[in-house]
Order: sequence, then structure tokens, then C-alpha cells
Amino acid sequence: MDQFDRLEVKENAERWAREARELIVAQMKETFSITTKAHQHDLVTDVDKNVEKFFLDKISHTYSDHRLMGEEGSFEEIKNLDGVVWILDPIDGTINFVQQKSNFAISIGIFQDGVPIIGLVYDVMRDEMFLSLKGEGATLNGIKIEPIPKVSLNESLLSFNAGWMLKDRKLEWLLEESRGIRSYGVASLEMAYVACGRLEAYISFNLAPWDMAGGYALLQEVGGIVTNYNGDPLTFLEKDTMIAANPWVYKEITEVLNRK
Amino acid sequence: MDQFDRLEVKENAERWAREARELIVAQMKETFSITTKAHQHDLVTDVDKNVEKFFLDKISHTYSDHRLMGEEGSFEEIKNLDGVVWILDPIDGTINFVQQKSNFAISIGIFQDGVPIIGLVYDVMRDEMFLSLKGEGATLNGIKIEPIPKVSLNESLLSFNAGWMLKDRKLEWLLEESRGIRSYGVASLEMAYVACGRLEAYISFNLAPWDMAGGYALLQEVGGIVTNYNGDPLTFLEKDTMIAANPWVYKEITEVLNRK
Repeated sequence: MDQFDRLEVKENAERWAREARELIVAQMKETFSITTKAHQHDLVTDVDKNVEKFFLDKISHTYSDHRLMGEEGSFEEIKNLDGVVWILDPIDGTINFVQQKSNFAISIGIFQDGVPIIGLVYDVMRDEMFLSLKGEGATLNGIKIEPIPKVSLNESLLSFNAGWMLKDRKLEWLLEESRGIRSYGVASLEMAYVACGRLEAYISFNLAPWDMAGGYALLQEVGGIVTNYNGDPLTFLEKDTMIAANPWVYKEITEVLNRK
Repeated sequence: MDQFDRLEVKENAERWAREARELIVAQMKETFSITTKAHQHDLVTDVDKNVEKFFLDKISHTYSDHRLMGEEGSFEEIKNLDGVVWILDPIDGTINFVQQKSNFAISIGIFQDGVPIIGLVYDVMRDEMFLSLKGEGATLNGIKIEPIPKVSLNESLLSFNAGWMLKDRKLEWLLEESRGIRSYGVASLEMAYVACGRLEAYISFNLAPWDMAGGYALLQEVGGIVTNYNGDPLTFLEKDTMIAANPWVYKEITEVLNRK
């Protein structure tokens, strides 16, 4: 594994995310055009594309040997995680962005040969910056996030979209076993909330690598567990399901979901 | 209907809510004790009680003829809405308050002889103040909220707790008919989001008058519709179900829910 200046890359990622915020806020004041991708649940705006282009320019200019996997596909197709790969969602929570003008995030996971090194999840309108560096822990707005504490499922707040209950009716059992269910519609931020204890678990049935990579890197640094819904590791090369959780709550959730 | 100085009362309500914020933030820094009320889903903290006491002192001192209906029951039992009644939830979203230290609100509806005159919903940690005065419209942080525009259900974000799908399976139909489902766990704020267009509808099966009164007053001023789940008016004297919505989306939702 070649070395690279991880601290410098982390600082640049943070700086660029904050610069991207300025770009986003300025464009929000203008009317932005919305085009429909696959279907109505999957909006993409000019702003997503512009933010991805902004990162592509910065990364390719500064780190010519790094690759970028971005939601908007403005760079090469990524078929492996060799070397240093930035996995970027320029605006995670595009529906919230369009409808609410808030509750969306920039998500970046920087992997080296498949290992998550740097995680960044930035709640743009709340100005909450979640950051992590492998071996150095995670911070929220510069303040260290403590390792995830032991919590029981019946004291836990979980997050998943109501629609997933149609995919697996066993999720209904979690309604009674937990303290409550939330749904914010922005995966990277929901993973960051698990990292800092605002939620104990986040479950989804349909996430792309760029939805998961930033939060995954964060969660590694505070002792969170992330697998797909079957308990297998994520590959970050294709869409997958996910359970991201406090490790004690993860164990209880899987016990509930494995009941007959 | 006797007159009272509505503008002054509104200004006092806003001032006291901001003062209560200081109280809350100061107490959050200390360790606060948590006692369990009916069951684990219904936490109440010292902070709830202190904030209600703060309002009780202010109101009884300044408006001796006004009555207070509060979640913590520190004042007389209210069996009618004669005269001026402040309907207060000192901390709506207590579970969020305890677990997340954010995503909770102070909610106040001030009614005169059963008519909503003033609405206040204050997202304490985000410092977002939703305010309304009968006939004068509603504002968010001082900026006028425009009347709710025509939106179709398939462009809408709805909010309800996943658990309500167990009470009425027909809610599942809304998953496909809408753009998405959210759940924030704080009724007053979800109603305020309907008022300002961040959500098109909020549905609940179990709300107390203090959960509903502030958001109800707000929604009156921007053309929102609020009924219980059966389409009947709310009484604000007992627990009830609720649909609070954009009027066009309300119509479509009730059509979906009335399908065979």
C-alpha cells in the first residue's frame, strides 16, 4: 500500500466541502432546473452535477493519481478499488434538497486499496461536519466523537424508510422492540447520526456506494458495525442493502430479524 | 369575544420561548435526570417540567385571566376552551431531546373561545421560529410564509411514523403514490414543515392537544387543512388522530385512503 499524505488529503476534502457549500447556497438562491433520471424518486439537479464537477476538477488537479467514483458519473467508470479512490455523493438527499432546501449532505469516503481511510459527511445547511481519519477517530465540528457506548435495543432510536417494511415484514417487530423509528431520507447523515449516538441503527434496502462510503469510514473509527442486510461485508462496487448500527444494537436487531 | 392585545401577547410568547431556549441549553449542559411516565416511549425530563413552570409563572403573572393547558399538568385541568387558553408543549419531541439533544420544539397555540389566534413552533437547537397571528399570516424567522401552493400527491413528501402502518394498512398505498415518507418524531415541527412546504402532509394516530395546537394555528394562516383521521374537526380537549396537509394533497390522500 503506497503512502499518501492522509492528513493533507483530509484537510483538502474538508476545505473543498466547505467551498462546495458556498456554491450550493449561491445556486439555491437562483432557480435551479430539475431533470428526472430513472423515475420521480430519483431527482437530479444541476447543483449535484456542478458540485461533482467542482470536486472532479479539484481532485484531478491536486491528486492526478486518485480516482473519483461519483453519483453523477462525470468521471471514469470504477470497477475496482485499487489505489486511492474518492467515493462521492455531491448531494445525498436530493429529494430533500429540492423539496426542503435542507436536510441534505455532501458525502465522501476516501479508500486506499479498498480500506476506508477518510470519511466526511457534511450537513450543508446545518453546517455540521462529521470527519474521520483512520486510526485517529472521528469528530463532529472539530469535537471528538466518543466510541459508541453500550445501548440496548429497547432504549434505541432506529431509522429506516417505512417502505422497507413491505420488503421485509419482520422490520415491523422492531417497532415494538425499540424506542422509536425515524426517517430522514439522507443515508450518509443517518449513518453519521449512528456514529454520534443520535440514532442506534440505520437500515436501507437500496444504497449505492456513494451513499455509504463516507458514513462507513466514520463508523469504523467509533466502533460501529456496517454490513448488508444479510450480514455480509459491503463491496462499494455495486448497490447493496445495509444495516449500520451500534454493535450491541446490531446484535439485538439481527436476533429479532432471525426469529421464525 | 373579549378583545385582548394580540400583538403584545404574540411578542411575549416569542420572547418567552427564546428565554426558555436559554434555560434549555443551560440545563442540557448539566446532566438532566429522566423519569419514565407511562412507559418507555413517554419520557419526561426535569427540563420539560422546568420549561412549563417558566411559562406558567410568566403567563399567570402577566395575564392573570389567561389559562394554561400544559403537557406536564402543572396548572388546572382544562375542560373547555372558554376565554384565552395557552396550549403548551414545553418540549415536543422529548425522546429526540433525550437521545439526540436536538430535533425538538416548543409548541404554543393561544386560543380565544376555541378559535386559534396565535401559533408558535420553535425548533430550539436550529433556532427556527415559526409564528402566526390570526389574519396576519405566518412567518419563519420573521420572513413571511407564502400561502400553501397547489402540489400533487406524486410530487409530495409525507411524514408519518412507520408504526401507523400497522394501525391502517392503507397507509402503505401512500408509499407508492408519493415522492417519499419521512418521520422526525416531533409533531409540532412536522406541522410547521407542512405550513412552509418542506412536507405536504403529516399523519398521526395519537396526539394530545399540546402536540397539535401551535401547528394548527400556523396552518390556519397559510391555507393548510387539519382534521382527525376520520375527517372530523379537532376539539383540542382530548387526544386525537390527525391529518395536517396541503389542501390539494389532503384531497388526494383521503381519496387513496377511501379506496376499497
